[in-house]
Amino acid sequence: MVRFLVLYETPEDPAAFDKHYHEIHIPLVRQLPGLLSYTVSRNLAALDDKAKYYLVAELDWETREALQAAFASETGMQTAADVPKFAPTGVHRLIYEVAEA
Amino acid sequence: MVRFLVLYETPEDPAAFDKHYHEIHIPLVRQLPGLLSYTVSRNLAALDDKAKYYLVAELDWETREALQAAFASETGMQTAADVPKFAPTGVHRLIYEVAEA
Repeated sequence: MVRFLVLYETPEDPAAFDKHYHEIHIPLVRQLPGLLSYTVSRNLAALDDKAKYYLVAELDWETREALQAAFASETGMQTAADVPKFAPTGVHRLIYEVAEA
Repeated sequence: MVRFLVLYETPEDPAAFDKHYHEIHIPLVRQLPGLLSYTVSRNLAALDDKAKYYLVAELDWETREALQAAFASETGMQTAADVPKFAPTGVHRLIYEVAEA
């Protein structure tokens, strides 16, 4: 499985961020082709100052090719283009295979 | 479900980090009471320079209380004490509830 991890830093206007994220971004992400799972963090706590993130989103696909195809789709491009509208800065993205330790 | 997300920055000596992580740290983590799932990243790629992490570990418990009990246990204290031995700096920890978006 391949995971797309998105770490959002604390926004200037958390209420506006939340509204846009829930009303516009989540519905877009949910339409991404091949998406297996999409979770967001609740009650996030950072154990060190350097990792003071506001929201963590995890999107899973079966393979890296499926993830790439999703972001190359029309919905994928809309989803990527939506991010700067609610998070112009402070967005960090990681992609990795998830392996049982 | 409650997730403990650990982001490790690139170590000075990746080979030594890997050896310690796999031979000593993973066996300790696996003994943590109540641990539901423990995954580590493979073939990690960062999409921006600020998020250049080397390894992402995700540890899941049923509840926050179960997680706290795990780290309060003898194994939990050994596990926490082991981290500075292979990652003296550059470790970022987040705790959050995992919610379907």
